[in-house]
Amino acid sequence: MSAPILATYRIRADAAEAARIARFIAYEQTVELPEALVVDPFLLEQVVGHVLSVAPADDGCFHARIAFEPSLASGQLSQLLNLVYGNVSMYPGIRLQALDLPPAVVAGFRGPGFGIAGLRTLTGAHDRPLLATAVKPRGLPVQRLAHLAADFVRGGGDIVKDDQNLVDEGFDGFRARVGAIADAVTRANAATGGRTLYFPHLAARHEDIHRYAAFVREVGLRGVLLCPHVLGLDTARDLAQAHGLVHMAHPALSGALTQAGDNGIEFGLALGTLLRLAGADISVFVAPGGRFRFSPAQAMRLAAACREPLGALAPAFPCPAGGMDYAQLPQLCERYGHDAVLLVGGALQAHDPDFARATDAYRSQIERCAARAGAIGGASGSL
Amino acid sequence: MSAPILATYRIRADAAEAARIARFIAYEQTVELPEALVVDPFLLEQVVGHVLSVAPADDGCFHARIAFEPSLASGQLSQLLNLVYGNVSMYPGIRLQALDLPPAVVAGFRGPGFGIAGLRTLTGAHDRPLLATAVKPRGLPVQRLAHLAADFVRGGGDIVKDDQNLVDEGFDGFRARVGAIADAVTRANAATGGRTLYFPHLAARHEDIHRYAAFVREVGLRGVLLCPHVLGLDTARDLAQAHGLVHMAHPALSGALTQAGDNGIEFGLALGTLLRLAGADISVFVAPGGRFRFSPAQAMRLAAACREPLGALAPAFPCPAGGMDYAQLPQLCERYGHDAVLLVGGALQAHDPDFARATDAYRSQIERCAARAGAIGGASGSL
Repeated sequence: MSAPILATYRIRADAAEAARIARFIAYEQTVELPEALVVDPFLLEQVVGHVLSVAPADDGCFHARIAFEPSLASGQLSQLLNLVYGNVSMYPGIRLQALDLPPAVVAGFRGPGFGIAGLRTLTGAHDRPLLATAVKPRGLPVQRLAHLAADFVRGGGDIVKDDQNLVDEGFDGFRARVGAIADAVTRANAATGGRTLYFPHLAARHEDIHRYAAFVREVGLRGVLLCPHVLGLDTARDLAQAHGLVHMAHPALSGALTQAGDNGIEFGLALGTLLRLAGADISVFVAPGGRFRFSPAQAMRLAAACREPLGALAPAFPCPAGGMDYAQLPQLCERYGHDAVLLVGGALQAHDPDFARATDAYRSQIERCAARAGAIGGASGSL
Repeated sequence: MSAPILATYRIRADAAEAARIARFIAYEQTVELPEALVVDPFLLEQVVGHVLSVAPADDGCFHARIAFEPSLASGQLSQLLNLVYGNVSMYPGIRLQALDLPPAVVAGFRGPGFGIAGLRTLTGAHDRPLLATAVKPRGLPVQRLAHLAADFVRGGGDIVKDDQNLVDEGFDGFRARVGAIADAVTRANAATGGRTLYFPHLAARHEDIHRYAAFVREVGLRGVLLCPHVLGLDTARDLAQAHGLVHMAHPALSGALTQAGDNGIEFGLALGTLLRLAGADISVFVAPGGRFRFSPAQAMRLAAACREPLGALAPAFPCPAGGMDYAQLPQLCERYGHDAVLLVGGALQAHDPDFARATDAYRSQIERCAARAGAIGGASGSL
């Protein structure tokens, strides 16, 4: 076997059953035949997974490490998912905990097209976390959404994105709305000399979506918000890549994968490693301290997965979101370091009736916190 | 509000907390703003979801019924998923239990392009369940896979599909393998006068996949196996629809949605209703009695979701799979009735060294069981 794909599964069972389940995974995910039917030495050596170890974990479960021949992923993200978790997702008590990909597999992916360095160049924001917001809610007249976006530019924000519920009735609606917001952002940038980016939510029927993406480029925008766990990870990858767009990944529907305690896929893997393979430049996630309940350890693991070495792939920005407010900015800057995008929606709208002033207050506070962190040694890259 | 989208959530919490969470869902999935920030009467009436009821369920949880304005789905399957479960998938203890779609929303979807009636016409198999198998394992030489498929034709099987692990290195590999199997099936059909269908697994990088689908049509095949929960439901829908192909849906990765007890999406919804909107003609699922552990009640619910009225959409075949064998055929025929596809892989290969003879034994037994069921009143449509 060439350098294998190493998958680690957390299995909730006793020791004997865990060993049986580990062998089950090795066969189910490859030949999908009972062991007795597989006698061909080639199949046994090159196709069936190899159970390397089954060891007790500290939570009473077992961790099984299984090696898969890398060619079984066929250089496809969809098939990689299928190989490591397709069928066994349906078996109780098996969670995909970690994935170590050999260089040859990672080299088949371009990864983030911009990454942290590319987005710093686009925004001109260096040595601090970026500030992002969402234009919302759906239902507001387009001009009010455009006004919110322009105020965010005037306040010195870095990235304004559509809320993932901002979806239009057909291409004409998309063109009218996105065109108006893009225009407002461009004019506000021209007035302030800023470089605030606007990322519309790319959502359309699959047969129309390339046309929507092409329009985004036509009006001079540099990126989009995508929901890869809704669209399909490889669909999202191709869309951003084909149109040269920054890929800001929204975690919609990902909770179905990450929240199931004994099933599903580990948080950092689902929203970090796999999204980098899908080309995400920014991975939005619901962070501890907001209105969802995630642990700091989960968030740290995800942030690490976004930024740690992964072949030649660029690091991506982790983007904590989901109910953070002004009072939490010092802690957020400390926890995530410089290389993060802080996404604040409702709290920013609630901070000050003047949205530009609210944005300026947030950005200034982020600058202060980042400078302080820099003065005491810098949190950047410390994760 | 027009006739609304009614979503039912199962919430694990006490009564007061369940009522709070229900309101949270209504806001989070629409305006995604704190209640205090939403005062505009239009937003409150037309955009925010309306909590209709929060009632205790018999498992100690609560069921919350929430009405959403149907235009919020924007006529898109991806956005429908986003609307009903995108963000709250990440909140602990919220499971999407049921979805009642108004006629105006369902009318936006074509649904199964062939459905039960269309597949009966294509196969010529009436008044009984269909017999399907998978060519596998990956790693066998193409000629042996082709030989297996031809033997299945000679034995009188109805549908032979690729295993979802049968994926090729690039288009040339796909063309060579699928071309050879298609050719073997065509020749065997010509010899027997049969109409066995062969559905290759459509798996490729997203940028290439339309080309693969076009090749499937070029060689005269009528359908494909797709993994919609890997590809994205709307990507799978568009692929089959654009190329006029039968859509046999494999449940890979769906366990991440369905297996999480307190999160995720109900089995029949994830693999029945939503897949019909995605145009699936056949929904493969792991059935009770095999090597996975699903309850008969779950299977019945899924089978019902495939076949019950859903606007003008054609009914789809439920397709129990995952370790069934010969001894179970009478029970399978009784449980699922005539309108099912019985997918048998490993057990069929193990039944008789002569695969054509094994297939004939299975098909004959299905015919006997179905005739018996017909004589005692017919199980078809009884679910």
